[in-house]
Amino acid sequence: MDDAVAAASRSGIARTTRDERADRLEALADALEADRADLVAIAHDETHLSTARLDGEVTRTAAQLRFFAGVAREGGYLEAVVESPDPSLVPPRPDLRRILRPLGPVAVYAASNFPFAFSVLGNDTASALAAGCPVIVKAHPGHPELSRATAALAAAVLPAGWFGLVEGMDAGVELVRHPGVRAAGFTGSVRGGRALFDLAVSRPDPIPFYGELGSINPVVVTRQAAAERAAEIGTGLVGSFTRDAGQYCTKPGLVIIPAGGGVEEAARAALGDAPASRQLTPRMADAFADGVEALAARPEVTVTRGSGGDGVSTPTIVSVPAGAFLADPETFLAECFGPVTVVVSYADDELDRILSALEHSLTATIHRGSGEDVTALAERLSGIAGRLLFDGWPTGVAIGWAQHHGGGWPATTASVHTSVGATAIRRWLTPIAYQDAPQEVLPPELRDGNPLGIPRRES
Amino acid sequence: MDDAVAAASRSGIARTTRDERADRLEALADALEADRADLVAIAHDETHLSTARLDGEVTRTAAQLRFFAGVAREGGYLEAVVESPDPSLVPPRPDLRRILRPLGPVAVYAASNFPFAFSVLGNDTASALAAGCPVIVKAHPGHPELSRATAALAAAVLPAGWFGLVEGMDAGVELVRHPGVRAAGFTGSVRGGRALFDLAVSRPDPIPFYGELGSINPVVVTRQAAAERAAEIGTGLVGSFTRDAGQYCTKPGLVIIPAGGGVEEAARAALGDAPASRQLTPRMADAFADGVEALAARPEVTVTRGSGGDGVSTPTIVSVPAGAFLADPETFLAECFGPVTVVVSYADDELDRILSALEHSLTATIHRGSGEDVTALAERLSGIAGRLLFDGWPTGVAIGWAQHHGGGWPATTASVHTSVGATAIRRWLTPIAYQDAPQEVLPPELRDGNPLGIPRRES
Repeated sequence: MDDAVAAASRSGIARTTRDERADRLEALADALEADRADLVAIAHDETHLSTARLDGEVTRTAAQLRFFAGVAREGGYLEAVVESPDPSLVPPRPDLRRILRPLGPVAVYAASNFPFAFSVLGNDTASALAAGCPVIVKAHPGHPELSRATAALAAAVLPAGWFGLVEGMDAGVELVRHPGVRAAGFTGSVRGGRALFDLAVSRPDPIPFYGELGSINPVVVTRQAAAERAAEIGTGLVGSFTRDAGQYCTKPGLVIIPAGGGVEEAARAALGDAPASRQLTPRMADAFADGVEALAARPEVTVTRGSGGDGVSTPTIVSVPAGAFLADPETFLAECFGPVTVVVSYADDELDRILSALEHSLTATIHRGSGEDVTALAERLSGIAGRLLFDGWPTGVAIGWAQHHGGGWPATTASVHTSVGATAIRRWLTPIAYQDAPQEVLPPELRDGNPLGIPRRES
Repeated sequence: MDDAVAAASRSGIARTTRDERADRLEALADALEADRADLVAIAHDETHLSTARLDGEVTRTAAQLRFFAGVAREGGYLEAVVESPDPSLVPPRPDLRRILRPLGPVAVYAASNFPFAFSVLGNDTASALAAGCPVIVKAHPGHPELSRATAALAAAVLPAGWFGLVEGMDAGVELVRHPGVRAAGFTGSVRGGRALFDLAVSRPDPIPFYGELGSINPVVVTRQAAAERAAEIGTGLVGSFTRDAGQYCTKPGLVIIPAGGGVEEAARAALGDAPASRQLTPRMADAFADGVEALAARPEVTVTRGSGGDGVSTPTIVSVPAGAFLADPETFLAECFGPVTVVVSYADDELDRILSALEHSLTATIHRGSGEDVTALAERLSGIAGRLLFDGWPTGVAIGWAQHHGGGWPATTASVHTSVGATAIRRWLTPIAYQDAPQEVLPPELRDGNPLGIPRRES
């Protein structure tokens, strides 16, 4: 551990140019795609995710690496500002120039459910390297061989110290407490994330801890939407919550539908065609079974199960009337990782109370009727959602400058930031202001005449 | 407390337009200046700061309020991004639009040493209101009457719930733990800030806590600078560290000078002309006396005192050779709030070790010779400084887009953000992404055609 952090501290990545880092990220993407077949095979053995899904995830992960290469090359993420002296102001303004600089070594806690895209060379690693921070990944125990294989790629492509891998729970604890580590990113459970967050903030020198934790991702179907396309919504719901065994942080875990609108019947009908899949680990499958059992044990609940089999988790719909949901919202709002969703049926005068019970989530979704004005509902949900989407399903998180993958507790430990999209890089950066600095001391991005031509604010 | 938070939650400020909030901030600035004479008189009674200084601080505070009004009006702070659908990407990109929205009620812990500019209507309050967050200020006990008088101005100018004031340590503790409070800003001591930070992060739902704490603000004088202008530097130093009884978070508390370069003699000579002033509270004066005593008790230390008197704190220079400093850096790096600075004299081969002992600070300063290349020294100090300045003094913090007032622990609890300058507003905002949203649901800043004409990124 000390060796890995010491190597990171000596790496010199903070002094590289943005183009150098972008070149390396692109080389990493190429290397990942070159080894695609071998990596997918290892991942399939370890995670039981389908090879088609894993193949797509490799493509996504390579796209993320190239995307952050582009973010680094462009330079807008530096938030550079150049202000000339103005003695007429109160207080007078000197020559002042601001830029963001890398925080230093970053600890990344890999996720189980995206063995490529949110693991060793995933979003956290790509954004931190783009920022100029060396990365030490704590491998997820769910896919150790894959973690080592992707780490070996990184070792081959990246200069010494830019990247390190550690394994085991003790190493994970040691990492977040290590004096040389300056920030941490995490994707996983509320319990695990909270434990590491507590360690990060109780250090003698607290460090930022960006944890992406649990999320129920409520979906609200209006009466008009149900009237117009109950069958489509029911089928779409089943496709979304059973996709890859329901192991998405953006899985729709709570679906709020108008009573008697036909959505539930459509979903139940579609459930028979949903595939039953093996979950990532036996422990997750057990937790899933326990979670479904706890939901099923509540009064007034109806459980509908799809096809099952040995060693797989059966797609399940838990239906509950609004009254029973409101009598015990905590039970129904607990995230259950796997192919299950809770469907709450509302009479029109119950919707408001259901919405009031919701916690912060990574996403919230509205299915509305054609031309229906859902402004009030959208404003209500915007207060608890990191991403608010319409007439679609939250699984699937696009990459871009406009993406936000975050939200208030318990969706994340740091609601001000995102773990997906260009601005994920902001997590690993701290500002510095230069006052009356000679030109040669300034980073080139702040020098007179903007020699590197980056987007910057000048006044 | 519950009443204040409930009123804040009901305030509706999050739904106001940027122009409405800007109008209110400007009205607040006008009101502050209209009552300038009365307010300065109250402040002078309570803080013992000079009326000239306090008068200037009112002007600064009004300028800050107007500055954040301008930040709100411009809208660039929203970081708006509009991305059109692109099905060719992996994963495919929907219509995705991102904006920042206010976090909700903000707790502001006022500082003692800037009874206007970092207190009731100071930077934290101005930036939070501009962001659209209601504010509840915990008054500093050092100026209770002034706090009430400025709070009364706010009550007269601002709509119900936008602003509240609470007093007393218990209220301060209750505030940061209150479920309705969504973020906190703090300016004060390491001990007080750490205690509140610990409460904020140990909540069932942790909230961001932006604390600006202690800072030693190292100054390095090169041998060439000393050779060229020892007298000017010595005099400037005394002016800076004794200004307003040395009660600045940016006071130069550690000055690293070449042995035998003449800077120390010049500073000692200037010390006789430095004013002895009464500190903000008797407790601070006692802590100052204790701090100086602890420094003076170390071996090899020379203490030079300026003029003193009853009830005032005597400007003091504590001189220490590099060897003695390096034998016990912790003692010499402890912030001592008041008119004292530690001068460390180095032989050329000792400078590196002294720099290695430094902690993070709000500022670091280099005095260099004419045309001297200080690139290596600047790079070294940029790793520990929020603001790096040249041939000047760190007291005095300009307002602007390029300003940064922050730094790593122990300078702040949140090194990724700033408490002064336009980007201070970023602390009170969280992103939201809208996916495939109908136009009428979107904030006007994200609608097609950019109807409000704000700076935004489109692709």
